Amino acid sequence: MGRMLEMFPMSTIDPLASWRTGPVKAALVDFVTAVTKIDGPDYVSPEERIAVFDNDGTLWAERPVQFQIYFALSRLEQLARKNPSAWLRPPYKAFLQHDIKAIAALSKRDALAPAFATHAGMTPREFQEGVTAWLDEAKHPTLGRLFKECVYLPQLELLRYLRASGFSRYIVSGGGLDFIRAFAEDLYGVPAAQIIASSVKTQFEVKGGKATLVKLPEIATFNDREAKVENIQLHIGRRPILAIGNSDGDLAMLRYAISGEGRRMALLLHHDDAAREFVYDRDFKLSPLAKALDNAKRYGFTVVSMKRDWKRVFRTGAFHPLHKAA
Amino acid sequence: MGRMLEMFPMSTIDPLASWRTGPVKAALVDFVTAVTKIDGPDYVSPEERIAVFDNDGTLWAERPVQFQIYFALSRLEQLARKNPSAWLRPPYKAFLQHDIKAIAALSKRDALAPAFATHAGMTPREFQEGVTAWLDEAKHPTLGRLFKECVYLPQLELLRYLRASGFSRYIVSGGGLDFIRAFAEDLYGVPAAQIIASSVKTQFEVKGGKATLVKLPEIATFNDREAKVENIQLHIGRRPILAIGNSDGDLAMLRYAISGEGRRMALLLHHDDAAREFVYDRDFKLSPLAKALDNAKRYGFTVVSMKRDWKRVFRTGAFHPLHKAA
Repeated sequence: MGRMLEMFPMSTIDPLASWRTGPVKAALVDFVTAVTKIDGPDYVSPEERIAVFDNDGTLWAERPVQFQIYFALSRLEQLARKNPSAWLRPPYKAFLQHDIKAIAALSKRDALAPAFATHAGMTPREFQEGVTAWLDEAKHPTLGRLFKECVYLPQLELLRYLRASGFSRYIVSGGGLDFIRAFAEDLYGVPAAQIIASSVKTQFEVKGGKATLVKLPEIATFNDREAKVENIQLHIGRRPILAIGNSDGDLAMLRYAISGEGRRMALLLHHDDAAREFVYDRDFKLSPLAKALDNAKRYGFTVVSMKRDWKRVFRTGAFHPLHKAA
Repeated sequence: MGRMLEMFPMSTIDPLASWRTGPVKAALVDFVTAVTKIDGPDYVSPEERIAVFDNDGTLWAERPVQFQIYFALSRLEQLARKNPSAWLRPPYKAFLQHDIKAIAALSKRDALAPAFATHAGMTPREFQEGVTAWLDEAKHPTLGRLFKECVYLPQLELLRYLRASGFSRYIVSGGGLDFIRAFAEDLYGVPAAQIIASSVKTQFEVKGGKATLVKLPEIATFNDREAKVENIQLHIGRRPILAIGNSDGDLAMLRYAISGEGRRMALLLHHDDAAREFVYDRDFKLSPLAKALDNAKRYGFTVVSMKRDWKRVFRTGAFHPLHKAA
């Protein structure tokens, strides 16, 4: 841990250099300053400084569809080559035809179904090695970069700024637990134990005298909407004081964070930047943003406009993982 | 955090002063020394230094029955006074008669059933305030001290020694999640996010415009035996290198810890000390120790004899929580 801090001493540069000067950046800095000011009226002890981040569409891009769906497609193709009769049938057949528009019209849970069904029998480590190998090569279909280069630079700065300010940062995602764990430590600097996500059931087995776990093709928790709050309680046991999301799937989590006592903040990222990324909200059926946006003011959310509030979206030039161990 | 270290500088005293000199203490110190020795053959990076502790019978006593059962009894009596017809019926009636022998003959899950059923409608915080108030006064029936004074001093030293050695310490218990969270930070120095335990389902609700969670009377996970390993993967995502337990409920977890690559250790505490605590193993139906003890050598477990290996069991004199904030 602490690798980022060594690379970018906080005292010499703006910790949020990729956030554009304006009311949103000012509110964010004001919040962090207030909760860390010892003897200030809004001081929060480090144990209670919990920040929760959604992943898809919040820490990295999620269009045309969530990146994990592309990964599941590549796995599905492998399986279909080996055993066509098992996989060339609904609902998998539609995926194998790469009909991204049709997939984007599904519910998030249905769209992620192949991701949860196609890795049964693997250990979590075997699965993660597959993800890492895929991420090293797989390219985003339109953004002209690897999927893993579609991480938002302003959010990496925010993660770093919060860590330097004594926050514990958790990712709370509807995506797959082992999928996110495969890259979160390298890309975000967030360790495995701080990922709360959708998961499949696992089974304890003893093979050749060695105890191990294998993945089953059955969902244990689908971590979206209210389930995000329930799983925050299960995993963290404290109410976050800061929550960051981008869809109605994050609405319950944002309301939960902002409903506690003392100083709190909820950020809602709005994708309104056609030139640098994508423009969408309620029209994205897979993970729409409507109710949270329409009620942002009433609920006390701070809306982040990608177009207005981010000076840069992605890191330009060659890809150097910010958090990669030397 | 770090409170203990400030109170007891590691350099000036034996970190395991309540462990008696002998092969078990030597093996424990040798293990911690080996995995922390940079450039040594058994070095383990801090991220991978995960230690998991069972709670009942491992960190504090569990006889005549697990302490949470006494807490649930006190709650059940409250409820039965208010609404006798709802609670003066099986299975709760037997509990209300305080027949501890009958309760001890139940399965662990059945014995804990009132604990999971009697707190519906409370928020986790309300529940924890009740636990804290109860623990401040409730006395163990035979040991002549408060329940919270039945914590094992050698294990507090081990928890502290591991933290000072860069380990992350988790409690992995069949007991209730919110019950353990109510005291684990004060008594053990282990924060809420590092408790993995049995849990009830919770429900997201908005009351008066504020989002909150309430407990439901339905078990979500019963964290015993193989489920301990599955939940270690869910919550931590790394295989522990050190596991400590005292019953067959910990067998899968101990085997899982010891089955990984590199240097590892599994400790099995045997209650064989009639003078200072209790003597039991396979005869304790609620949480028997039989298979793990009979196969300890074959599986590579280190058996800790309370009588032989612990110089002191409890802290004598007045109770001062080791980890209590000043």
